[in-house]
Amino acid sequence: MIAPEDKVTAGLLVIGDEILSGRTKDVNIAATAEFCTDLGIELREVRVVADDMDDIIAAVNALRERYTYVFTTGGIGPTHDDITADAVAKAFGVALPINPQARAMLEERWRQTGTEVNEARLRMAHVPEGADLIVNSVSAAPGFRIANVHVMAGVPVIMRAMLEALAPSLKGGRKVLSVSVKAAVGEGTVGGPLAELQAQYPDVKMGSYPQMGRGQVMTELVLRSSDPDRLAEAVEKVRAMVAEAHERAGVTPPSDV
Amino acid sequence: MIAPEDKVTAGLLVIGDEILSGRTKDVNIAATAEFCTDLGIELREVRVVADDMDDIIAAVNALRERYTYVFTTGGIGPTHDDITADAVAKAFGVALPINPQARAMLEERWRQTGTEVNEARLRMAHVPEGADLIVNSVSAAPGFRIANVHVMAGVPVIMRAMLEALAPSLKGGRKVLSVSVKAAVGEGTVGGPLAELQAQYPDVKMGSYPQMGRGQVMTELVLRSSDPDRLAEAVEKVRAMVAEAHERAGVTPPSDV
Repeated sequence: MIAPEDKVTAGLLVIGDEILSGRTKDVNIAATAEFCTDLGIELREVRVVADDMDDIIAAVNALRERYTYVFTTGGIGPTHDDITADAVAKAFGVALPINPQARAMLEERWRQTGTEVNEARLRMAHVPEGADLIVNSVSAAPGFRIANVHVMAGVPVIMRAMLEALAPSLKGGRKVLSVSVKAAVGEGTVGGPLAELQAQYPDVKMGSYPQMGRGQVMTELVLRSSDPDRLAEAVEKVRAMVAEAHERAGVTPPSDV
Repeated sequence: MIAPEDKVTAGLLVIGDEILSGRTKDVNIAATAEFCTDLGIELREVRVVADDMDDIIAAVNALRERYTYVFTTGGIGPTHDDITADAVAKAFGVALPINPQARAMLEERWRQTGTEVNEARLRMAHVPEGADLIVNSVSAAPGFRIANVHVMAGVPVIMRAMLEALAPSLKGGRKVLSVSVKAAVGEGTVGGPLAELQAQYPDVKMGSYPQMGRGQVMTELVLRSSDPDRLAEAVEKVRAMVAEAHERAGVTPPSDV
Protein backbone atom coordinates (compact mmCIF):
# COMPACT_ATOMS: atom_id res chain seq x y z
CA MET A 1 0.00 0.00 0.00
CA ILE A 2 1.32 3.41 -0.91
CA ALA A 3 0.60 6.32 1.41
CA PRO A 4 -1.12 9.48 0.15
CA GLU A 5 0.76 11.58 -2.45
CA ASP A 6 2.74 8.50 -3.46
CA LYS A 7 5.19 9.15 -0.68
CA VAL A 8 7.33 6.15 0.12
CA THR A 9 6.94 5.54 3.85
CA ALA A 10 8.31 3.09 6.40
CA GLY A 11 7.65 1.79 9.88
CA LEU A 12 10.32 0.21 12.07
CA LEU A 13 9.65 -2.47 14.67
CA VAL A 14 12.41 -3.07 17.22
CA ILE A 15 11.93 -6.37 19.03
CA GLY A 16 13.57 -7.27 22.31
CA ASP A 17 13.12 -7.31 26.08
CA GLU A 18 16.65 -6.02 26.51
CA ILE A 19 15.76 -2.65 24.93
CA LEU A 20 12.68 -2.19 27.11
CA SER A 21 14.53 -3.14 30.32
CA GLY A 22 17.31 -0.66 29.56
CA ARG A 23 19.98 -3.38 29.55
CA THR A 24 20.79 -2.66 25.90
CA LYS A 25 20.73 0.81 24.41
CA ASP A 26 19.16 0.69 20.96
CA VAL A 27 21.17 2.14 18.09
CA ASN A 28 19.14 0.59 15.26
CA ILE A 29 16.45 3.28 15.35
CA ALA A 30 18.99 6.00 14.50
CA ALA A 31 20.66 3.80 11.85
CA THR A 32 17.33 3.02 10.16
CA ALA A 33 16.25 6.66 10.37
CA GLU A 34 19.43 7.81 8.62
CA PHE A 35 19.20 5.02 6.07
CA CYS A 36 15.60 5.93 5.17
CA THR A 37 16.39 9.65 4.96
CA ASP A 38 19.32 8.91 2.64
CA LEU A 39 17.05 6.91 0.34
CA GLY A 40 14.22 9.44 0.38
CA ILE A 41 11.98 7.08 2.35
CA GLU A 42 9.95 8.75 5.07
CA LEU A 43 10.23 6.82 8.34
CA ARG A 44 6.86 7.57 9.90
CA GLU A 45 6.77 5.45 13.03
CA VAL A 46 8.90 3.26 15.28
CA ARG A 47 7.63 0.73 17.76
CA VAL A 48 9.62 -1.20 20.35
CA VAL A 49 7.98 -4.34 21.72
CA ALA A 50 9.06 -7.21 23.96
CA ASP A 51 9.81 -10.79 22.84
CA ASP A 52 6.10 -11.50 23.08
CA MET A 53 4.25 -13.39 20.35
CA ASP A 54 0.98 -11.44 20.46
CA ASP A 55 2.71 -8.07 20.73
CA ILE A 56 4.96 -8.78 17.73
CA ILE A 57 2.09 -10.07 15.59
CA ALA A 58 -0.10 -7.06 16.43
CA ALA A 59 2.69 -4.58 15.67
CA VAL A 60 3.69 -6.27 12.38
CA ASN A 61 0.10 -6.27 11.21
CA ALA A 62 -0.51 -2.66 12.24
CA LEU A 63 2.63 -1.38 10.53
CA ARG A 64 2.47 -3.42 7.33
CA GLU A 65 -0.98 -2.11 6.51
CA ARG A 66 0.04 1.44 7.11
CA TYR A 67 3.42 1.91 5.44
CA THR A 68 5.12 1.11 2.14
CA TYR A 69 7.86 -0.78 3.94
CA VAL A 70 8.23 -2.34 7.38
CA PHE A 71 11.62 -3.13 8.88
CA THR A 72 12.02 -5.27 11.96
CA THR A 73 15.18 -5.79 14.00
CA GLY A 74 15.89 -8.44 16.61
CA GLY A 75 14.66 -11.86 17.63
CA ILE A 76 16.06 -13.98 14.78
CA GLY A 77 18.87 -15.68 16.69
CA PRO A 78 19.15 -19.28 17.96
CA THR A 79 17.68 -18.96 21.48
CA HIS A 80 14.23 -19.71 22.83
CA ASP A 81 13.25 -16.06 23.03
CA ASP A 82 14.03 -15.45 19.35
CA ILE A 83 10.47 -15.71 18.05
CA THR A 84 10.34 -13.05 15.35
CA ALA A 85 10.26 -15.48 12.38
CA ASP A 86 7.52 -17.46 14.08
CA ALA A 87 5.51 -14.29 14.83
CA VAL A 88 5.88 -12.94 11.28
CA ALA A 89 4.79 -16.30 9.81
CA LYS A 90 1.71 -16.18 12.07
CA ALA A 91 1.03 -12.53 11.12
CA PHE A 92 0.91 -13.61 7.47
CA GLY A 93 -0.82 -16.92 8.18
CA VAL A 94 1.89 -19.01 6.51
CA ALA A 95 4.03 -21.98 7.59
CA LEU A 96 7.60 -21.72 8.88
CA PRO A 97 9.55 -24.56 7.23
CA ILE A 98 13.32 -24.97 7.03
CA ASN A 99 14.54 -22.95 4.04
CA PRO A 100 17.04 -25.10 2.10
CA GLN A 101 19.10 -22.11 0.94
CA ALA A 102 19.32 -20.69 4.47
CA ARG A 103 20.24 -24.12 5.84
CA ALA A 104 22.97 -24.57 3.22
CA MET A 105 24.44 -21.14 3.98
CA LEU A 106 24.48 -21.78 7.71
CA GLU A 107 25.92 -25.30 7.37
CA GLU A 108 28.64 -24.01 5.06
CA ARG A 109 29.65 -21.40 7.66
CA TRP A 110 29.45 -23.94 10.50
CA ARG A 111 31.69 -26.30 8.53
CA GLN A 112 34.26 -23.52 8.10
CA THR A 113 34.26 -22.74 11.79
CA GLY A 114 33.83 -26.27 13.14
CA THR A 115 30.56 -25.28 14.83
CA GLU A 116 28.24 -28.07 15.91
CA VAL A 117 24.91 -28.22 14.06
CA ASN A 118 22.16 -28.49 16.65
CA GLU A 119 18.45 -27.87 16.87
CA ALA A 120 18.83 -24.45 18.45
CA ARG A 121 21.14 -23.27 15.68
CA LEU A 122 18.86 -24.74 13.00
CA ARG A 123 16.07 -22.47 14.26
CA MET A 124 17.84 -19.78 12.25
CA ALA A 125 17.15 -21.71 9.02
CA HIS A 126 13.36 -21.55 9.49
CA VAL A 127 11.89 -18.92 7.18
CA PRO A 128 8.22 -18.17 6.47
CA GLU A 129 6.85 -19.72 3.31
CA GLY A 130 7.04 -17.34 0.36
CA ALA A 131 9.77 -15.18 1.87
CA ASP A 132 13.04 -14.21 0.15
CA LEU A 133 16.29 -14.29 2.08
CA ILE A 134 18.20 -11.14 2.99
CA VAL A 135 21.75 -12.33 2.55
CA ASN A 136 24.42 -10.17 4.12
CA SER A 137 28.18 -9.97 4.26
CA VAL A 138 28.63 -10.05 8.02
CA SER A 139 26.63 -13.04 9.24
CA ALA A 140 25.71 -16.32 7.56
CA ALA A 141 22.30 -16.22 9.25
CA PRO A 142 20.02 -14.51 6.76
CA GLY A 143 17.15 -12.14 7.36
CA PHE A 144 14.13 -12.37 5.09
CA ARG A 145 11.51 -10.35 3.28
CA ILE A 146 7.88 -11.33 3.02
CA ALA A 147 5.60 -8.95 1.12
CA ASN A 148 6.57 -5.47 2.40
CA VAL A 149 8.05 -6.70 5.70
CA HIS A 150 11.84 -6.95 6.04
CA VAL A 151 13.04 -9.00 8.99
CA MET A 152 16.57 -8.23 10.13
CA ALA A 153 18.98 -9.11 12.92
CA GLY A 154 19.24 -7.04 16.09
CA VAL A 155 23.04 -6.95 16.24
CA PRO A 156 23.73 -3.45 14.87
CA VAL A 157 26.53 -4.27 12.43
CA ILE A 158 24.56 -7.18 10.95
CA MET A 159 21.40 -5.08 10.79
CA ARG A 160 23.21 -2.32 8.89
CA ALA A 161 24.71 -4.87 6.45
CA MET A 162 21.20 -6.19 5.83
CA LEU A 163 19.92 -2.65 5.17
CA GLU A 164 22.73 -2.20 2.64
CA ALA A 165 21.79 -5.49 1.00
CA LEU A 166 18.18 -4.28 0.75
CA ALA A 167 18.93 -0.77 -0.52
CA PRO A 168 18.96 -1.59 -4.27
CA SER A 169 15.55 -3.31 -4.02
CA LEU A 170 13.81 -0.44 -2.23
CA LYS A 171 12.17 2.35 -4.15
CA GLY A 172 12.68 5.69 -2.48
CA GLY A 173 12.14 9.32 -3.29
CA ARG A 174 15.67 9.35 -4.68
CA LYS A 175 17.28 6.68 -6.80
CA VAL A 176 20.33 5.55 -4.91
CA LEU A 177 23.20 3.63 -6.46
CA SER A 178 25.37 1.32 -4.44
CA VAL A 179 28.75 -0.33 -5.05
CA SER A 180 30.47 -2.89 -2.85
CA VAL A 181 34.25 -3.20 -2.57
CA LYS A 182 35.74 -6.20 -0.79
CA ALA A 183 38.94 -5.99 1.17
CA ALA A 184 40.98 -8.94 2.47
CA VAL A 185 42.10 -6.92 5.48
CA GLY A 186 40.41 -6.02 8.76
CA GLU A 187 38.26 -2.97 9.44
CA GLY A 188 41.02 -1.44 11.55
CA THR A 189 43.33 -1.40 8.54
CA VAL A 190 40.96 0.41 6.19
CA GLY A 191 39.13 2.48 8.84
CA GLY A 192 41.51 5.47 8.87
CA PRO A 193 41.89 5.99 5.12
CA LEU A 194 38.16 5.29 4.61
CA ALA A 195 37.29 8.07 7.06
CA GLU A 196 39.51 10.45 5.05
CA LEU A 197 37.76 9.50 1.83
CA GLN A 198 34.37 9.88 3.51
CA ALA A 199 35.33 13.43 4.49
CA GLN A 200 36.28 14.16 0.85
CA TYR A 201 32.99 12.70 -0.43
CA PRO A 202 30.28 13.73 2.04
CA ASP A 203 27.66 13.05 -0.67
CA VAL A 204 28.74 9.41 -0.95
CA LYS A 205 27.80 7.32 2.12
CA MET A 206 30.58 4.87 2.97
CA GLY A 207 29.92 1.91 5.25
CA SER A 208 32.27 -0.78 6.50
CA TYR A 209 31.09 -4.32 7.32
CA PRO A 210 33.47 -6.88 8.79
CA GLN A 211 32.69 -10.50 7.97
CA MET A 212 32.31 -12.47 11.16
CA GLY A 213 32.92 -16.08 12.05
CA ARG A 214 35.20 -16.98 9.15
CA GLY A 215 38.78 -18.12 9.18
CA GLN A 216 39.91 -15.43 6.78
CA VAL A 217 39.71 -11.71 7.47
CA MET A 218 37.38 -9.87 5.13
CA THR A 219 35.75 -6.43 5.18
CA GLU A 220 33.06 -5.27 2.79
CA LEU A 221 32.93 -1.57 2.02
CA VAL A 222 29.64 -0.27 0.66
CA LEU A 223 29.40 3.10 -1.10
CA ARG A 224 26.05 4.70 -1.75
CA SER A 225 25.10 7.89 -3.59
CA SER A 226 22.42 9.34 -5.84
CA ASP A 227 25.10 10.94 -8.02
CA PRO A 228 26.61 8.30 -10.37
CA ASP A 229 29.68 10.39 -11.28
CA ARG A 230 30.61 11.17 -7.71
CA LEU A 231 29.99 7.54 -6.77
CA ALA A 232 32.27 6.26 -9.56
CA GLU A 233 34.97 8.71 -8.51
CA ALA A 234 34.73 7.67 -4.85
CA VAL A 235 34.68 3.96 -5.72
CA GLU A 236 37.86 4.38 -7.73
CA LYS A 237 39.60 6.05 -4.77
CA VAL A 238 38.36 3.39 -2.34
CA ARG A 239 39.56 0.61 -4.67
CA ALA A 240 43.00 2.24 -4.89
CA MET A 241 43.10 2.57 -1.11
CA VAL A 242 42.17 -1.10 -0.66
CA ALA A 243 44.73 -2.24 -3.26
CA GLU A 244 47.39 -0.33 -1.37
CA ALA A 245 46.28 -1.94 1.90
CA HIS A 246 46.49 -5.39 0.29
CA GLU A 247 49.97 -4.67 -0.99
CA ARG A 248 51.18 -3.41 2.39
CA ALA A 249 49.70 -6.46 4.13
CA GLY A 250 51.04 -8.81 1.44
CA VAL A 251 47.65 -10.47 0.93
CA THR A 252 45.93 -11.66 -2.23
CA PRO A 253 42.84 -9.64 -3.11
CA PRO A 254 39.57 -11.57 -2.82
CA SER A 255 38.65 -13.21 -6.13
CA ASP A 256 35.25 -11.50 -6.33
CA VAL A 257 36.52 -7.92 -6.25
CA MET B 1 -6.38 0.25 34.04
CA ILE B 2 -4.11 -2.32 35.63
CA ALA B 3 -2.62 -5.06 33.45
CA PRO B 4 -3.15 -8.76 34.28
CA GLU B 5 -1.55 -10.06 37.51
CA ASP B 6 -1.52 -6.52 38.90
CA LYS B 7 1.75 -5.85 37.16
CA VAL B 8 2.54 -2.18 36.90
CA THR B 9 3.20 -1.50 33.22
CA ALA B 10 4.15 1.50 31.11
CA GLY B 11 4.21 2.66 27.51
CA LEU B 12 6.50 5.41 26.24
CA LEU B 13 5.65 7.73 23.37
CA VAL B 14 8.56 9.66 21.86
CA ILE B 15 7.33 12.57 19.73
CA GLY B 16 9.42 14.34 17.13
CA ASP B 17 10.29 14.48 13.45
CA GLU B 18 13.96 14.88 14.34
CA ILE B 19 14.15 11.36 15.78
CA LEU B 20 12.50 9.78 12.73
CA SER B 21 14.71 11.68 10.28
CA GLY B 22 17.85 10.60 12.13
CA ARG B 23 18.90 14.19 12.82
CA THR B 24 18.65 13.60 16.58
CA LYS B 25 19.62 10.33 18.24
CA ASP B 26 17.09 9.50 20.92
CA VAL B 27 18.43 8.85 24.42
CA ASN B 28 15.10 9.13 26.25
CA ILE B 29 14.06 5.56 25.48
CA ALA B 30 17.07 4.15 27.34
CA ALA B 31 16.62 6.64 30.22
CA THR B 32 12.92 5.76 30.62
CA ALA B 33 13.68 2.04 30.34
CA GLU B 34 16.23 2.24 33.15
CA PHE B 35 13.97 4.44 35.24
CA CYS B 36 11.06 2.00 34.94
CA THR B 37 13.26 -1.00 35.69
CA ASP B 38 14.60 0.74 38.81
CA LEU B 39 11.07 1.37 40.03
CA GLY B 40 9.83 -2.13 39.23
CA ILE B 41 7.59 -0.81 36.45
CA GLU B 42 7.52 -2.99 33.35
CA LEU B 43 8.03 -0.86 30.23
CA ARG B 44 6.05 -2.87 27.68
CA GLU B 45 6.14 -0.75 24.55
CA VAL B 46 7.71 2.31 22.99
CA ARG B 47 6.39 4.24 20.03
CA VAL B 48 8.09 7.02 18.14
CA VAL B 49 5.82 9.24 16.03
CA ALA B 50 6.24 12.46 14.07
CA ASP B 51 4.93 15.91 15.09
CA ASP B 52 1.61 14.98 13.55
CA MET B 53 -1.68 15.65 15.33
CA ASP B 54 -3.52 12.49 14.29
CA ASP B 55 -0.52 10.22 14.89
CA ILE B 56 0.03 11.60 18.40
CA ILE B 57 -3.65 11.35 19.33
CA ALA B 58 -3.88 7.76 18.04
CA ALA B 59 -0.75 6.68 19.89
CA VAL B 60 -1.75 8.37 23.18
CA ASN B 61 -5.15 6.72 23.07
CA ALA B 62 -3.74 3.30 22.18
CA LEU B 63 -1.14 3.37 24.94
CA ARG B 64 -3.24 4.89 27.73
CA GLU B 65 -5.83 2.14 27.43
CA ARG B 66 -3.23 -0.56 27.51
CA TYR B 67 -0.76 0.35 30.25
CA THR B 68 -0.80 1.54 33.84
CA TYR B 69 1.27 4.58 32.93
CA VAL B 70 2.05 6.40 29.72
CA PHE B 71 5.05 8.71 29.41
CA THR B 72 5.50 11.05 26.49
CA THR B 73 8.61 13.04 25.59
CA GLY B 74 8.95 15.94 23.19
CA GLY B 75 6.77 18.54 21.54
CA ILE B 76 6.06 20.83 24.50
CA GLY B 77 8.31 23.75 23.52
CA PRO B 78 7.41 27.18 22.14
CA THR B 79 7.51 26.55 18.38
CA HIS B 80 4.74 25.84 15.89
CA ASP B 81 5.58 22.14 15.65
CA ASP B 82 5.25 21.64 19.42
CA ILE B 83 1.74 20.24 19.41
CA THR B 84 1.86 17.58 22.11
CA ALA B 85 -0.25 19.50 24.67
CA ASP B 86 -2.83 20.20 22.00
CA ALA B 87 -2.88 16.55 20.87
CA VAL B 88 -3.19 15.22 24.43
CA ALA B 89 -6.05 17.64 25.17
CA LYS B 90 -7.81 16.38 22.02
CA ALA B 91 -7.11 12.73 22.96
CA PHE B 92 -8.91 13.35 26.27
CA GLY B 93 -11.55 15.64 24.75
CA VAL B 94 -10.76 18.56 27.07
CA ALA B 95 -9.89 22.23 26.55
CA LEU B 96 -6.36 23.65 26.59
CA PRO B 97 -6.52 26.91 28.56
CA ILE B 98 -3.61 28.89 29.98
CA ASN B 99 -2.71 27.37 33.35
CA PRO B 100 -2.21 30.23 35.84
CA GLN B 101 0.42 28.33 37.87
CA ALA B 102 2.42 27.44 34.74
CA ARG B 103 2.14 31.02 33.48
CA ALA B 104 3.36 32.41 36.82
CA MET B 105 6.33 30.02 36.90
CA LEU B 106 7.34 30.91 33.35
CA GLU B 107 6.90 34.67 33.88
CA GLU B 108 8.97 34.50 37.07
CA ARG B 109 11.79 32.80 35.17
CA TRP B 110 11.49 35.22 32.24
CA ARG B 111 11.69 38.16 34.67
CA GLN B 112 14.89 36.75 36.14
CA THR B 113 16.48 36.33 32.74
CA GLY B 114 15.04 39.44 31.05
CA THR B 115 13.30 37.26 28.44
CA GLU B 116 10.49 38.84 26.44
CA VAL B 117 7.03 37.38 27.03
CA ASN B 118 5.50 36.65 23.64
CA GLU B 119 2.72 34.51 22.24
CA ALA B 120 5.07 31.70 21.15
CA ARG B 121 6.56 31.43 24.64
CA LEU B 122 3.12 31.56 26.24
CA ARG B 123 2.20 28.41 24.30
CA MET B 124 4.18 26.60 27.00
CA ALA B 125 1.67 27.80 29.65
CA HIS B 126 -1.26 26.04 27.94
CA VAL B 127 -2.13 22.87 29.83
CA PRO B 128 -5.11 20.52 29.31
CA GLU B 129 -8.00 21.08 31.70
CA GLY B 130 -7.79 18.80 34.71
CA ALA B 131 -4.06 18.16 34.38
CA ASP B 132 -1.49 18.55 37.20
CA LEU B 133 1.84 20.19 36.48
CA ILE B 134 5.11 18.27 36.52
CA VAL B 135 7.41 20.84 38.02
CA ASN B 136 11.11 20.19 37.63
CA SER B 137 14.38 21.65 38.78
CA VAL B 138 15.98 22.22 35.39
CA SER B 139 13.43 24.14 33.34
CA ALA B 140 10.68 26.55 34.32
CA ALA B 141 8.43 25.10 31.59
CA PRO B 142 6.42 22.39 33.31
CA GLY B 143 5.25 19.06 31.98
CA PHE B 144 1.87 17.78 33.06
CA ARG B 145 -0.06 14.69 34.03
CA ILE B 146 -3.61 13.98 32.97
CA ALA B 147 -5.13 10.69 34.17
CA ASN B 148 -2.36 8.09 33.57
CA VAL B 149 -0.55 10.11 30.88
CA HIS B 150 2.62 12.00 31.83
CA VAL B 151 3.73 14.60 29.32
CA MET B 152 7.39 15.53 29.50
CA ALA B 153 9.98 17.58 27.63
CA GLY B 154 12.15 16.07 24.91
CA VAL B 155 15.41 17.66 26.07
CA PRO B 156 17.06 14.72 27.85
CA VAL B 157 18.21 16.47 31.02
CA ILE B 158 14.80 18.11 31.50
CA MET B 159 13.03 14.84 30.76
CA ARG B 160 15.10 13.02 33.38
CA ALA B 161 14.44 15.74 35.95
CA MET B 162 10.70 15.36 35.25
CA LEU B 163 10.95 11.58 35.74
CA GLU B 164 12.64 12.19 39.08
CA ALA B 165 9.89 14.62 40.02
CA LEU B 166 7.32 11.94 39.16
CA ALA B 167 9.02 9.02 40.88
CA PRO B 168 7.45 9.47 44.34
CA SER B 169 3.93 9.55 42.83
CA LEU B 170 4.32 6.36 40.78
CA LYS B 171 3.50 3.00 42.24
CA GLY B 172 5.96 0.36 41.15
CA GLY B 173 6.83 -3.19 42.00
CA ARG B 174 9.35 -1.81 44.47
CA LYS B 175 8.88 1.10 46.83
CA VAL B 176 11.57 3.60 45.98
CA LEU B 177 12.65 6.45 48.25
CA SER B 178 14.12 9.62 46.89
CA VAL B 179 16.05 12.52 48.47
CA SER B 180 17.10 15.74 46.77
CA VAL B 181 20.25 17.69 47.70
CA LYS B 182 20.76 21.18 46.27
CA ALA B 183 24.20 22.52 45.46
CA ALA B 184 25.04 26.16 44.68
CA VAL B 185 27.84 25.07 42.35
CA GLY B 186 27.85 23.77 38.78
CA GLU B 187 27.61 20.17 37.66
CA GLY B 188 31.28 20.16 36.66
CA THR B 189 32.26 20.88 40.26
CA VAL B 190 30.29 18.04 41.85
CA GLY B 191 30.53 15.60 38.91
CA GLY B 192 33.83 13.96 39.87
CA PRO B 193 33.15 13.35 43.57
CA LEU B 194 29.56 12.32 42.80
CA ALA B 195 30.82 9.63 40.40
CA GLU B 196 33.07 8.31 43.18
CA LEU B 197 30.15 8.15 45.60
CA GLN B 198 27.99 6.48 42.93
CA ALA B 199 30.66 3.78 42.57
CA GLN B 200 30.60 3.25 46.36
CA TYR B 201 26.79 3.04 46.40
CA PRO B 202 25.75 1.13 43.27
CA ASP B 203 22.37 0.40 44.91
CA VAL B 204 21.61 4.11 45.29
CA LYS B 205 20.93 5.82 41.94
CA MET B 206 22.47 9.30 41.87
CA GLY B 207 21.36 11.85 39.29
CA SER B 208 22.56 15.39 38.69
CA TYR B 209 20.30 18.11 37.26
CA PRO B 210 21.68 21.56 36.45
CA GLN B 211 19.18 24.39 36.70
CA MET B 212 19.03 26.22 33.40
CA GLY B 213 18.24 29.80 32.48
CA ARG B 214 18.86 31.36 35.90
CA GLY B 215 21.37 33.97 36.93
CA GLN B 216 22.71 31.85 39.78
CA VAL B 217 24.39 28.48 39.32
CA MET B 218 22.46 25.63 40.91
CA THR B 219 22.60 21.84 40.63
CA GLU B 220 20.07 19.46 42.09
CA LEU B 221 21.33 16.02 43.06
CA VAL B 222 18.68 13.33 43.36
CA LEU B 223 19.37 10.06 45.21
CA ARG B 224 17.05 7.11 44.83
CA SER B 225 17.03 3.68 46.47
CA SER B 226 14.68 1.05 47.80
CA ASP B 227 16.93 0.59 50.86
CA PRO B 228 16.29 3.41 53.38
CA ASP B 229 19.48 2.80 55.39
CA ARG B 230 21.77 2.79 52.37
CA LEU B 231 19.96 5.87 51.05
CA ALA B 232 20.44 7.77 54.33
CA GLU B 233 24.11 6.83 54.40
CA ALA B 234 24.65 7.95 50.79
CA VAL B 235 22.71 11.19 51.33
CA GLU B 236 24.93 12.03 54.29
CA LYS B 237 28.07 11.53 52.17
CA VAL B 238 26.65 13.57 49.28
CA ARG B 239 25.69 16.40 51.67
CA ALA B 240 29.23 16.41 53.11
CA MET B 241 30.69 16.45 49.59
CA VAL B 242 28.45 19.38 48.60
CA ALA B 243 29.28 21.31 51.82
CA GLU B 244 32.96 20.91 51.02
CA ALA B 245 32.38 22.13 47.45
CA HIS B 246 30.53 25.19 48.80
CA GLU B 247 33.37 25.97 51.17
CA ARG B 248 36.02 25.62 48.46
CA ALA B 249 34.01 27.85 46.12
CA GLY B 250 33.26 30.32 48.90
CA VAL B 251 29.51 30.32 48.18
CA THR B 252 26.52 30.41 50.50
CA PRO B 253 24.53 27.18 50.48
CA PRO B 254 21.01 27.53 49.00
CA SER B 255 18.46 28.38 51.67
CA ASP B 256 16.27 25.36 50.94
CA VAL B 257 18.92 22.70 51.55
